Amino acid sequence: MAELVLTTFDWVPELPRGYVRDLRVRWALEEAELPYRVNSVSFRDRGDDHFSHQPFGQVPWLSDGDLSIFESGAILLHLGERSDKLIMTDPRVRSEVIEWLFAALNSVEAASLPWSLFKFSGDDTETPGRTHLDGFLQARLQRMEAVLKGRKWLAESFSVADILMADVLRLVDRFDGLADYPACSNYVARTTARPGFLKAYKDQMEHFAAGD
Amino acid sequence: MAELVLTTFDWVPELPRGYVRDLRVRWALEEAELPYRVNSVSFRDRGDDHFSHQPFGQVPWLSDGDLSIFESGAILLHLGERSDKLIMTDPRVRSEVIEWLFAALNSVEAASLPWSLFKFSGDDTETPGRTHLDGFLQARLQRMEAVLKGRKWLAESFSVADILMADVLRLVDRFDGLADYPACSNYVARTTARPGFLKAYKDQMEHFAAGD
Repeated sequence: MAELVLTTFDWVPELPRGYVRDLRVRWALEEAELPYRVNSVSFRDRGDDHFSHQPFGQVPWLSDGDLSIFESGAILLHLGERSDKLIMTDPRVRSEVIEWLFAALNSVEAASLPWSLFKFSGDDTETPGRTHLDGFLQARLQRMEAVLKGRKWLAESFSVADILMADVLRLVDRFDGLADYPACSNYVARTTARPGFLKAYKDQMEHFAAGD
Repeated sequence: MAELVLTTFDWVPELPRGYVRDLRVRWALEEAELPYRVNSVSFRDRGDDHFSHQPFGQVPWLSDGDLSIFESGAILLHLGERSDKLIMTDPRVRSEVIEWLFAALNSVEAASLPWSLFKFSGDDTETPGRTHLDGFLQARLQRMEAVLKGRKWLAESFSVADILMADVLRLVDRFDGLADYPACSNYVARTTARPGFLKAYKDQMEHFAAGD
């Protein structure tokens, strides 16, 4: 098998540390026990080579032999094809994992990420659009609460869908957005207690600290 | 092969018509020339059976034999495995299609959907969070403009990635958000001129009109 190389920034400011998306990939690689190497690109100076691998000038991307893959969802789906610890092979369960993987990245994160931008800006101005956005997130969290009350993991066992959903909800939790959602909050606690998350988190923090 | 059944609402208000997400699935089915049947669920009264198929109480979902799949991204990925008109079989091209499919639903739509909620609310109040959100969308559109200047489709030929990216950008265009991005605007024009889109759009409009 080809060597897996994860590329992330050489450094980021304090605030996003622990939340940069290479964490999702590190976490999946740890859970799958796949060996990998970490490569760095400049945060301050993003050149043509960077954009050729990640067209938005973001990170991460993963190299697997001839393939260079961007978007954490696409990377986790790819890794899931290399490990049955990340996506189960039974067709019904596999389909469940994939739908929840998209649910995390689209139905939930399209509400939670913009909400976190407002929180991040310390902006609590009540405007009609903001009320709409807050309602959008609450509707998603209410439904996730109902789902997570009844199960430990999104599919039959822990999967890439849990890595993504937990990482999405973790950012809501950072701004105290899960206070009224105990099942979501407990889910974040039990996913982030896994050795794979703890290793990924520690490695990301050390990586960016080394760039200081 | 099992019959494909697409489930959507029986009716929606005027404003979202032409933009309900069953359109993405209809479009993919038309492009792939896969036969399908449309099933309706109540928009006004969403019961347990609805939530058991679509945990957020949204539409669409697709039934394919024993499988019932929610999230338009997961559905289009599934259909892509049934048709090489939607996802090419060459591993490198397949990987490109999948990364752009995620790019549409996460990198772009997580910026464009919340932006459209503010536009939808007629809300132009300048607040720090709003400035942050608008900047997030502009950054994504600038990069999509650079990408689409150089190619006709996101991967080697038209694919599910184009269906999703075009549908995401179409909603930005609805609120005149592509005025400064001619390559994006032209891309939306050429994707939505395809017979598959036109049929899907017409069918959705007729379906909801029949529910009036």
